[in-house]
Amino acid sequence: MSKIDEITGLIREMEANTPGIEASAVVSVQGLPIASAMPSEVDESVVAAMTAAILSVGERASQELVRGNLQQITMQGDQGYIIIKGAGISAIITVLAKNDANLGLIFMVLKKISARIGELLSEE
Amino acid sequence: MSKIDEITGLIREMEANTPGIEASAVVSVQGLPIASAMPSEVDESVVAAMTAAILSVGERASQELVRGNLQQITMQGDQGYIIIKGAGISAIITVLAKNDANLGLIFMVLKKISARIGELLSEE
Repeated sequence: MSKIDEITGLIREMEANTPGIEASAVVSVQGLPIASAMPSEVDESVVAAMTAAILSVGERASQELVRGNLQQITMQGDQGYIIIKGAGISAIITVLAKNDANLGLIFMVLKKISARIGELLSEE
Repeated sequence: MSKIDEITGLIREMEANTPGIEASAVVSVQGLPIASAMPSEVDESVVAAMTAAILSVGERASQELVRGNLQQITMQGDQGYIIIKGAGISAIITVLAKNDANLGLIFMVLKKISARIGELLSEE
């Protein structure tokens, strides 16, 4: 099984076990898709590009406003959440969730899965 | 008392009554300061510019990723949080909080104060 297959398996499993998650993707810090589990109406390349754009502005803001290194961004729209978290040094995981999702649970799951994806991508 | 004095009073009161908040500011959607309660080491104009930059990218992402109109952004750095919320149609409130702040409480307080500031700024 390739690393990409393994990562896709991890995010599919996360979606299946975490109520409220609608879509998720792992993208490179350059804004290119690595792996995703998305419904057909969501464009993987748009998610990847938007994720990298937000992270770039967010990292600048976190430094300028003395909040240290950026760990996670949560955006709440009136139709749901976008949650973005670093996964190792070269990748980011993005989750789209429903408005009634349990954020505490999603944050906990993301912490675990982002560490695992970071490890997988840093292995030889 | 001018509107700006009233808004400054509201955010100072919020800071005094909400543990974990280190600084807060109300800025225009164009990125200019309206009112602030900041420690001297934080530059009000940098906060205003960063807030507008994040909001602009966040609004685009929320639309593109079918999350509807953006309501709030929470960024977590390893040294604390930046929380950004719209206050009416022309202003934004930004809060800098410590890492151990009670986010649930801050979100509740922000909901109330942002509505009040939106009303104040929309009055003749």
